[in-house]
Amino acid sequence: MSLTFADVEAAAARIAGHAVVTPLIESPALNERLGARVLIKAETLQRVGAFKFRGAYNRLVQLSPEERRRRVVAFSSGNHAQGVALAARLLGMPALIVMPSDAPAIKVAATRGYGAEVRLYDRLTESREQIAAAIAAERGAVVVPAFDDPHIAAGQGTVGLEMVRQAQALGATFDLVLAPVSGGGLLAGISLAVKALSPATAIWGVEPAGFEDLRLSLEAGERVTIKPTGRSLCDALESPAPGVVTFPILKQALAGAVAITDPEVAEAMRYAFATLKLVVEPGGAVGLAALLTGKVKLNAGQTAGLVLSGGNVDPELFARVINGEI
Amino acid sequence: MSLTFADVEAAAARIAGHAVVTPLIESPALNERLGARVLIKAETLQRVGAFKFRGAYNRLVQLSPEERRRRVVAFSSGNHAQGVALAARLLGMPALIVMPSDAPAIKVAATRGYGAEVRLYDRLTESREQIAAAIAAERGAVVVPAFDDPHIAAGQGTVGLEMVRQAQALGATFDLVLAPVSGGGLLAGISLAVKALSPATAIWGVEPAGFEDLRLSLEAGERVTIKPTGRSLCDALESPAPGVVTFPILKQALAGAVAITDPEVAEAMRYAFATLKLVVEPGGAVGLAALLTGKVKLNAGQTAGLVLSGGNVDPELFARVINGEI
Repeated sequence: MSLTFADVEAAAARIAGHAVVTPLIESPALNERLGARVLIKAETLQRVGAFKFRGAYNRLVQLSPEERRRRVVAFSSGNHAQGVALAARLLGMPALIVMPSDAPAIKVAATRGYGAEVRLYDRLTESREQIAAAIAAERGAVVVPAFDDPHIAAGQGTVGLEMVRQAQALGATFDLVLAPVSGGGLLAGISLAVKALSPATAIWGVEPAGFEDLRLSLEAGERVTIKPTGRSLCDALESPAPGVVTFPILKQALAGAVAITDPEVAEAMRYAFATLKLVVEPGGAVGLAALLTGKVKLNAGQTAGLVLSGGNVDPELFARVINGEI
Repeated sequence: MSLTFADVEAAAARIAGHAVVTPLIESPALNERLGARVLIKAETLQRVGAFKFRGAYNRLVQLSPEERRRRVVAFSSGNHAQGVALAARLLGMPALIVMPSDAPAIKVAATRGYGAEVRLYDRLTESREQIAAAIAAERGAVVVPAFDDPHIAAGQGTVGLEMVRQAQALGATFDLVLAPVSGGGLLAGISLAVKALSPATAIWGVEPAGFEDLRLSLEAGERVTIKPTGRSLCDALESPAPGVVTFPILKQALAGAVAITDPEVAEAMRYAFATLKLVVEPGGAVGLAALLTGKVKLNAGQTAGLVLSGGNVDPELFARVINGEI
């Protein structure tokens, strides 16, 4: 299946009335600081606190009646887990989610709260894909990948569709759009929508320093898999490679990719807390960090579309960040 | 001047393009918890992080050219301070703000950040009204009260005007509306708008326990001034009496007033952090607390309009709240 904008439009019709049409927020203080205009797509306000519900619902709602009687299995560090768990509950399917034992507690608790069974695994000694595949084979379940799936990417692309239309309603056109990237489901989906509706808009991917697989892949012209040497504050963005489904779209659409360090992410989270009054998780704040640091430059008078992709952060970590301890 | 809905409409026209039209947010998780529908007016996303900018701008923009050449003086624990400071800056007026020395640091810093001169006073040994009046007389300045002024209350009422119209755009009608109350500028302004546009809507004021001057005044049928015996977590809501301008409106419009304790406020702030992903200050969260505690009851299927009035909270306090230390 070759993914197109029509798939994003079809996804938008499927999730209508189920996903929240999140607001496009404007902060005069941020505009003033940057000497430009930033329209903020607050996916922190989406169901499950992150955009992931969109793709999960778009995927699960298309299962056949026979598939729906089976169990859904997903593996995720947290936001996809919650998205699949809630979508499965709404569709009356049992869900089993495989999560790393060091995932943020708030994400594990929320996933269980949506009624899913959670199986924790050790990130260092076990392979989550093998665990999930074994469970799926054993129980005849449907495995729902986090990003490398056309229906997942199309569902996430509704973020871009909504952004462009909401900006149009304000009489604005995006000079550029920034979104976080891990495996690229969100960014590929957004790219399809934005390039279809606003072809001149430059699209930037933002990834954590040390997980620059997108930048390296764009430079190489093919998918590069990195060997991470450490962790990032951005627990949601630690994929070692862009997806098979997502990379061809990204390669064609993107202006480029930039990387954000942990201190830069923490500073962006503090800005979101103190000035925007929004709770943003580390992985959700990298686009804001790219603007605040000038790693993605906005010229005077330009308009940017900024995706704050999630807000699921443990209170202990958030407290340390806003107190300046990170 | 007798205040009417026409004054709120006139204020809306004056602040258009200057104040943010804040979004009306819906959380399926909150709806599910309450078995009802809550539409959240996020004034945390207003300029200066609180609704106060609306009234301050509506007041200052109506000054005569001669008055505009003078200095503006206001006294405030923080949010009115910031509202006046920013409105004055936008209108090219110098501002002097008198603030208690124990006001939240974030509010003092932000007020200075908008270019105002700040004079701190000791809450226990000095009278802020006397200080402000003396300064005003000395410099020929214009004193802008925090709530007991028709133009201030009319400006705050634009919150209610926007809420009702935004709900109508969703096909919804409010069965009830809740807003925090200190001196009553916000609640009186909202009452004028809501009762004009949606007469059957019940309006509730929510105040901090120990500062129940509104409830006592409603019971007495006249303004009652309390002698507080302690402080509240809600630094923004410590007025000892409803206003002369605001009380007659409140007396006519309100269904009632309820009081929220500090632990209940802290719990509502945690809910806003963990589930709504919004940063809400204590005084801004009392309406949410009233719903979560059931002190204001929503029947199954009813729709409530909830004002989250501000998000200006020191990181140290916010960290303690989300870590469950308060």
